[in-house]
Order: sequence, then C-alpha cells, then structure tokens
Amino acid sequence: MLIREATPGDWPAIWPFLHRIVAAGETYTWPRDVSEEQAREMWCLEPPGRTVVAVDDDGTVLGSAKMNPNHMGPASHISSASFMVAPEHAGRGVGRALGEYALNWARTEGYRAMQFNAVVETNTRAVALWRSLGFEVLGTLPEGFHHPVKGYVGLHIMHRRL
Amino acid sequence: MLIREATPGDWPAIWPFLHRIVAAGETYTWPRDVSEEQAREMWCLEPPGRTVVAVDDDGTVLGSAKMNPNHMGPASHISSASFMVAPEHAGRGVGRALGEYALNWARTEGYRAMQFNAVVETNTRAVALWRSLGFEVLGTLPEGFHHPVKGYVGLHIMHRRL
Repeated sequence: MLIREATPGDWPAIWPFLHRIVAAGETYTWPRDVSEEQAREMWCLEPPGRTVVAVDDDGTVLGSAKMNPNHMGPASHISSASFMVAPEHAGRGVGRALGEYALNWARTEGYRAMQFNAVVETNTRAVALWRSLGFEVLGTLPEGFHHPVKGYVGLHIMHRRL
Repeated sequence: MLIREATPGDWPAIWPFLHRIVAAGETYTWPRDVSEEQAREMWCLEPPGRTVVAVDDDGTVLGSAKMNPNHMGPASHISSASFMVAPEHAGRGVGRALGEYALNWARTEGYRAMQFNAVVETNTRAVALWRSLGFEVLGTLPEGFHHPVKGYVGLHIMHRRL
C-alpha cells in the first residue's frame, strides 16, 4: 500500500465511497445529500491542508485522508484530520496506515497536537483505532449526533499530543 | 440596552474593538493580524447564521455576537456562538445579555444544544459567565492556546443543552 498526495485525477475514485459513507449518515457530520461539487471542495484541500490517497499495488484507491489546521491564530499549532476507507477494502489496515501518515505529516509540519472534533461514539472501530494510535477522548458532546438507526448518540472530541 | 441584528452600517463601530481583542491574542483563535476584510467575512454571517449588536440608548455599539450551526448534517442540531464586548464597556452586563440572546436564538431556531469550541481557560471572566449561563466544560484541550504572556494554556470545549 502506498500513500501519496491526491491529484484531481483521483477524485472519480474517491467520490463513490466518500458519497456512500456520507449518505449513510452514520459516521460523518456532513450533509447526507452532499453534492459532488461540495464534497470535492470540502475534501480536496489546498495548503496548508493536504489530501492523500492510499493506493494498492495496482493503483486502486483504497481510502483517502485530509489533514489540516484545526484552529487559527494562537491555536494554529493544533491539527486535525479526516479519513474515509472504501467499505470494500475495510479490514486491511488502510485506516491505520492513513492515521499514522497523518500523525507524521502533522509532526513534520510542526503541529504540537492533533484534535478530532467529531468522532461518533457508535463508530467503535474508529474510536478503537484512534485509541490504539495514542488518542484520548477529551470529552463527549452528549447526543451530539443523530444516527439514522441508533438515534441521538455522543460525539467524541479526541486528542493526541505529537 | 437593545440587541438587534447587525447591519452593514454597524461594521465601522464593531471593527475597532473586534480588532483590538483579536490583535491582543489573549482570547480568540483568530489570526492576530487579521485584516478588516477577513474579519468582516468571519464575523458578519448570513443565514443560517446571525450577527447582532448590543446598543446603548444613544445607539452606541457596546458589543456584538455571532451565532451559527456548529456542525453539519447529522450534528446540525448543535449551535455555536462567539462574543465581543468593547473593552471600554466591560462590566455592564453586555456579555451576559448577548449570551442570553444567543441561547434564546438557538432555542427558537430549533437547536438542541450550544457548543463553544475554544474558550481560553485563562479567560476566567468568560468561563465564569458561561458557567453562570448553564454551560459546562466538556473537556479541555491541553496547551491548546498560545497566550502571549502565559504561554501554552488550555482551551475549553463548553456545552449547554437547550
């Protein structure tokens, strides 16, 4: 698996799984009916942000991540990141590889910490993955997320020093 | 004191104290060297956001607040708000009046909670005010804010159900 900067040519491979994940409404605080154009603007970042893809040996896009400053000004030393793994490629370590990449990116860029603003507490695989990468739950917004099946569930704010 | 929707004509009265507060770098996670145009874009919101001013009997602008969704999609029932009180009018209850206004606005708009993403822990007056209005600290981002005098201090995430 290779992780490299996303190019405009990667978008047609990213959009189908990104769309499926967002439309499911179970893990992302994005409008479930997001348009392709809105999604591209929100996902494909210019510096100081960065968007990458994880690709297989044959060039198949397995997942994508974006990383960016979380705050501005006197809090601009805090980074954030978001991750999407194509459901058909789950369980292959793509999320972990993208997470490690994002942490290295943030360290290299001089950030002092990474903060995730909205990790749905019922997304237990993601929560466990971030914990295994050294993140802690700073706090949980009670009933912060309206899950289509489970109703109102908590939204974790997670944090890791770099 | 009257709180009313801000109009373009209020900006020349807002900018001096907003600029002074942001440039001080002690309480806001905005670039300290923010330009007037950037500041106006970030402060003066279109629906679904709202920007208001608190004015004296003689029309003097004492402070301003903006209120807006904090998240999108399945978390769009969470609101946020930001407040600026002209330092020369501090201690007159302007912040409290704007805070109560924002909570009422959010309730009326159908939000289920208000979340502040970044309250500097050394801004003890603000923290005490929000606590007195029913907010709790959900968590604190350690060393999340670089204070010009106190160095790295915590950033509270505060929350109140509506």
